Amino acid sequence: MDEREARMALCCVVEPASTAVTAAVAEHGPAAVLEGLRSRASRSRWAQRARALDLDAVRRATRRNRLRFVIPGDDEWPASLGVLATCEPVQEMNGMPFGLWVKGDVNLAQVSDRAVAIVGSRAATAYGESVASDLAAGLGGHGVSVVSGGAYGIDAAAHAGALAGGAPTVAVMAGGLDKPYPPGNATLLQRVAGQGLLVSELPPGEHPTRARFLSRNRLIAALCPATIIVEAAWRSGARNTVSWANACGRVVLAVPGPVHSATSTTPHRLIRDAEAVLCTGVPDVLELVGPLGRLSAARPDQHRVLDELSADELAVYEAIPARGEIDAGEVTLRAGLPLGTCLGILDRICDRGLVEHGVAGWRLPRPAVTRAGD
Amino acid sequence: MDEREARMALCCVVEPASTAVTAAVAEHGPAAVLEGLRSRASRSRWAQRARALDLDAVRRATRRNRLRFVIPGDDEWPASLGVLATCEPVQEMNGMPFGLWVKGDVNLAQVSDRAVAIVGSRAATAYGESVASDLAAGLGGHGVSVVSGGAYGIDAAAHAGALAGGAPTVAVMAGGLDKPYPPGNATLLQRVAGQGLLVSELPPGEHPTRARFLSRNRLIAALCPATIIVEAAWRSGARNTVSWANACGRVVLAVPGPVHSATSTTPHRLIRDAEAVLCTGVPDVLELVGPLGRLSAARPDQHRVLDELSADELAVYEAIPARGEIDAGEVTLRAGLPLGTCLGILDRICDRGLVEHGVAGWRLPRPAVTRAGD
Repeated sequence: MDEREARMALCCVVEPASTAVTAAVAEHGPAAVLEGLRSRASRSRWAQRARALDLDAVRRATRRNRLRFVIPGDDEWPASLGVLATCEPVQEMNGMPFGLWVKGDVNLAQVSDRAVAIVGSRAATAYGESVASDLAAGLGGHGVSVVSGGAYGIDAAAHAGALAGGAPTVAVMAGGLDKPYPPGNATLLQRVAGQGLLVSELPPGEHPTRARFLSRNRLIAALCPATIIVEAAWRSGARNTVSWANACGRVVLAVPGPVHSATSTTPHRLIRDAEAVLCTGVPDVLELVGPLGRLSAARPDQHRVLDELSADELAVYEAIPARGEIDAGEVTLRAGLPLGTCLGILDRICDRGLVEHGVAGWRLPRPAVTRAGD
Repeated sequence: MDEREARMALCCVVEPASTAVTAAVAEHGPAAVLEGLRSRASRSRWAQRARALDLDAVRRATRRNRLRFVIPGDDEWPASLGVLATCEPVQEMNGMPFGLWVKGDVNLAQVSDRAVAIVGSRAATAYGESVASDLAAGLGGHGVSVVSGGAYGIDAAAHAGALAGGAPTVAVMAGGLDKPYPPGNATLLQRVAGQGLLVSELPPGEHPTRARFLSRNRLIAALCPATIIVEAAWRSGARNTVSWANACGRVVLAVPGPVHSATSTTPHRLIRDAEAVLCTGVPDVLELVGPLGRLSAARPDQHRVLDELSADELAVYEAIPARGEIDAGEVTLRAGLPLGTCLGILDRICDRGLVEHGVAGWRLPRPAVTRAGD
């Protein structure tokens, strides 16, 4: 039995994120571990499943549902999942998936290279859904894919927004890809498969369980350099995804909302306790997730710079309009300072990066990431 | 001329927060500095005012308006203002006030000993005003006074809430206390004076100016161990108060809101850049401002503790209801684990402070600060 077959069999036999088995696979390889499970001597809880497995049936179901089975070493295998081999367990789960069933025409590795997870409550508010959808659409417009879990509420809003934004979107499922779950999202998930990908570490025919939702969350968190939590109850799947993102060393962003909104309690608490960075829109995300999904350096702390300005310097800085450019004469008028003073100050604050000289005069510098249309 | 008279005269002659004069007063004392300003040789910008001052008229206006003039060394002088003698300038202003005019029957030092500043936009939303008012009323119920600037919007909502909460509230004004400003808040400010205090470093008859609003903000920030910003435009007085609070080493809290709300942009940015701690309600404030206005230690990071629980431990922990108490038999039923296992786990997670044993069974621990009714 070759490695691909052994990995497919392990996916069918062992529940995802089993700490013991994934450690054994890392040490002895998938074929040896599978052989061990199948042996008469095995007293593993997976032994019976291993002996009863009809791998041909799984292969047929894979083909019939137009799925492919991807394993480490394949072109399409996302390097980002490697973190799961070493990160701390969350609720006694950890480990790389043995393989992934994938549905859709795009390359999983390429898509997840520049992707952000958007997660949250199934019982979301209209506010939360609109923020999730706007974020996803905006990120799509910048070529950033959105990864989520295909559930009702925030997940669905994120996938729908991403589809509208035109970038591929990825739904990581907690059961087999033959049956859409939840059924009410069937049309949406079909569109996701058409424009992006459905992904699962479970074979066709398997149903989601509570444990599988939790192990699925680790894939969402690990795939992306950043996870955004939009709205969620404190004990929620989204909170679990955040724990995974933290365990994987990923950036966590959280969207604030009205203080009276119960579904914003979790984002607020995460932000307050510095487990998440506050996120109000696409620029906040792009600032953290640079090209190719890498984390960029923190932006310069502009407010501190402004606090250090003298009153005259501040007057000149404030004379520069939010949009457009004005010449130094206009700056003089607005700031109420002599032209020479203004020119000196403009040069000084230009050196500090607070203003820049454009085509028609002085203007505020625009971050490169927001120039494309935010 | 005694020190009190010299300080009163300096308040009348020198614009507040003048770096040079406050430094001179700290070195040579108020009487000597005033004498210097009055001398024929003085070329100070304040010399003419010093020579023209009719201090008797100011004293009469102070009495006529039922004000008192408080100076450092008086019982009522707030020790918290001492920080202004040493903190970094903000927009070229700094320094202790030479003295303060006070109106109202309570003791300024006592009130500000356990006080929180609530500041924000004049152009606030209904959301912001309701949060400010609820916060102030809730803090008042815990004996925490609210300090603000008496302006429209957030300030007014905070004062009104504090009055409803029953604790004294302090309005620090940017002009003389003889005339309420803004006039539309006259009734509110009268009630503030009746139940709390009006405070200003400017003598009766003086009008607020832009510079005086800024210097006034330093008093609000310095008086209180914590400043809460509710809603504000980026370039706003409230933002300036936050700069002062940071310069004074005070805690800054900021209230989040909907990401689409322009007036929440400033709180969001302050939170995001770790210049402010996210605040959703009274417990968040009390957690930071302990008895007598001192800062308490940060609370233990409960989520990290929960992440370290095993699946069984989590099941037991989650079996404990948010309110009320249940016995171990009920825990067993809810967690789906044997009684012995449950008892062992209950003991272990009790040691970690996650649950506690009450009168009728096991319950979640309640923070002391919220027991009184939050």
